Amino acid sequence: MRNFDQQFMRHALARARRAPLTVVAPNPRVGAVVVKNGKIIGGGYHAKFGGPHAEAVALSRCKVSPRGATLYVTLEPCCHWGKTPPCTEAIFRAGIKKVIYAIEDPHPFMKGKGMKILRQKGIKVEILSPLERGGRGADGVCVHEAKRLNESFFYFHKKKLPFVAVKVATSLDGRIATRRGDSKWITSEAARKYAREKIRSEYQAILAGVNTILRDDPCLCIRKKGVTDPVRIIFDSALQTPLRAKVLRDERVILCVSNKVESYKIKKFERKGVKIWKFTGRRIPIQPLLRRLAREGINSVLVEGGGEVIGSFMDAKAINKVYWFHAPIIIGGREAIPSVGGTGAAKLLQAIHLKRVEHTQIDRDMLTIGYI
Amino acid sequence: MRNFDQQFMRHALARARRAPLTVVAPNPRVGAVVVKNGKIIGGGYHAKFGGPHAEAVALSRCKVSPRGATLYVTLEPCCHWGKTPPCTEAIFRAGIKKVIYAIEDPHPFMKGKGMKILRQKGIKVEILSPLERGGRGADGVCVHEAKRLNESFFYFHKKKLPFVAVKVATSLDGRIATRRGDSKWITSEAARKYAREKIRSEYQAILAGVNTILRDDPCLCIRKKGVTDPVRIIFDSALQTPLRAKVLRDERVILCVSNKVESYKIKKFERKGVKIWKFTGRRIPIQPLLRRLAREGINSVLVEGGGEVIGSFMDAKAINKVYWFHAPIIIGGREAIPSVGGTGAAKLLQAIHLKRVEHTQIDRDMLTIGYI
Repeated sequence: MRNFDQQFMRHALARARRAPLTVVAPNPRVGAVVVKNGKIIGGGYHAKFGGPHAEAVALSRCKVSPRGATLYVTLEPCCHWGKTPPCTEAIFRAGIKKVIYAIEDPHPFMKGKGMKILRQKGIKVEILSPLERGGRGADGVCVHEAKRLNESFFYFHKKKLPFVAVKVATSLDGRIATRRGDSKWITSEAARKYAREKIRSEYQAILAGVNTILRDDPCLCIRKKGVTDPVRIIFDSALQTPLRAKVLRDERVILCVSNKVESYKIKKFERKGVKIWKFTGRRIPIQPLLRRLAREGINSVLVEGGGEVIGSFMDAKAINKVYWFHAPIIIGGREAIPSVGGTGAAKLLQAIHLKRVEHTQIDRDMLTIGYI
Repeated sequence: MRNFDQQFMRHALARARRAPLTVVAPNPRVGAVVVKNGKIIGGGYHAKFGGPHAEAVALSRCKVSPRGATLYVTLEPCCHWGKTPPCTEAIFRAGIKKVIYAIEDPHPFMKGKGMKILRQKGIKVEILSPLERGGRGADGVCVHEAKRLNESFFYFHKKKLPFVAVKVATSLDGRIATRRGDSKWITSEAARKYAREKIRSEYQAILAGVNTILRDDPCLCIRKKGVTDPVRIIFDSALQTPLRAKVLRDERVILCVSNKVESYKIKKFERKGVKIWKFTGRRIPIQPLLRRLAREGINSVLVEGGGEVIGSFMDAKAINKVYWFHAPIIIGGREAIPSVGGTGAAKLLQAIHLKRVEHTQIDRDMLTIGYI
């Protein structure tokens, strides 16, 4: 890849990043720039589910005619009629001479089809690296970033299951509350804001246990103008969530309950528009839940707690990514509330070993991010 | 402070740092350089308890006559006969014109007396900052470093109690072993080497519970040529340490036991030269232990675990510094072994909040250091 290609792709990536994932999901984030005579003449990104795609936005914003120009786009342009017309059409009609994209669209309708159609129309197409090759050459950084930008989207289309991340905020000794249940607040205001605005906005759904709802009555929201809140999923076997809980403020809520909960109770919630999903067993089973979420088109879930819910996901080996905040405090005490319940590892070799670990300091707290 | 003073003081500090604390303790670490016509003509440090002091070493190593030179030393020069003759004498006899030191010696025999004697002999004396002023001006960095270099020594002479640090190595979820007790190894080889060579060599004594001895049979040593191992203190109420435990390899061991342990058992250990300290109560009481350590001239203790021993120190509010290693692994499980037992905080406000926190990545692990 030539050096300037990488530069322009970085511009496209930067534009793609402007959209919070919750706003475009289940679509991926995409950015594009149109380049003519070595200069960017237009750029844009997919800003909203159902809205125009990045390519169409970039072309429509060109200050001069895009005829003969090169289009840089972070993902393979689409070639099918969805909520919007196919981008391949728009590219052809605009007279684009060459398209360079970072990574193949893993969507079953796509997978290289966009490339074929463009080539049939006589447009030159370059691809930084096909999805499967992994891309760690000269162009590796851009491909890596393009993949990471939509990691849950790529995972979902490969595995047909949602990408599951866990967010935990603990003391150094790994506690989420004191022995008396005091948990407000362990991490700093800056860390909590980061978790709310940056992490939550990367996931289509947030999942928590009913104890968290009963104890803290959290909104599980992003609280940022123009950013859609994720769907909220509550593990609530015995259906104990109060009808006036903040988390029920709109209809984008799924309560996972035991199939033993009486139907008169369930009706009260359904009347409010809340979805009730029934499962067999004393605890909500993780794999059936994930399969159901996949069927409903939910690509990604952020599990926020408490300890037993996180333990269930750990024991089910259903976690793909971890965000762990450590505050520089020590709670101590045999009876303090642990961050990860469940059964856990018997041997250290069976413990979860994070890969591609990154550390970031946020105010006084340390954020560790890693993959499984 | 003039800029070059700070430069030369840094040279003296760098020399002081060369001595592991265990080798000079209970003395402080001290470094010195002799400067003539803007050039260092000699330098040295206090390398070994009972050996010559930094000033004497620096003067003896001068390549040209130190007559008329300036001596930079990290601590106030001593003026009394101990294991070696007073440094004030050596300085006077060498014809030093001016002495600049970073910080006053808090030893009861000293506290500014060295300065007085030097001045009486007609030598100019400058002090960067007296101990109590804290020193955060232009010369703040050097004073701060000089203080930190001997933090346990300064603490001990102020409080008449040993400086207590805790070293913990856990998973992200704050566990020191799995539910089955598997604990080898949570942190990386590099982190363990750092803990052994860099952290242990900063303390006169290492303290651990008998369970650690029974489970791991550790040496609690530094394993580095020329570096004295710290004294080992074992919390062993019921005197369960095996006579062949690695930790008993020499006589520098103190076993803290309950006064209910039968004397025939105790004699077996005393015959090996091991010290037995008896305490009343079911658990070893922390404050009486610390007072006794102080009387025996032990300035500093590193508490290494396990969870209940660390919990005892936390509950007694007897900790001054924390070294916390986090490996990027998650052990999970309600029954996994917690890093801090004891009673712990009831409210978050009562939790231990670390100050002056620093984070260092060592291989794949994160080391958090803070003060209480």
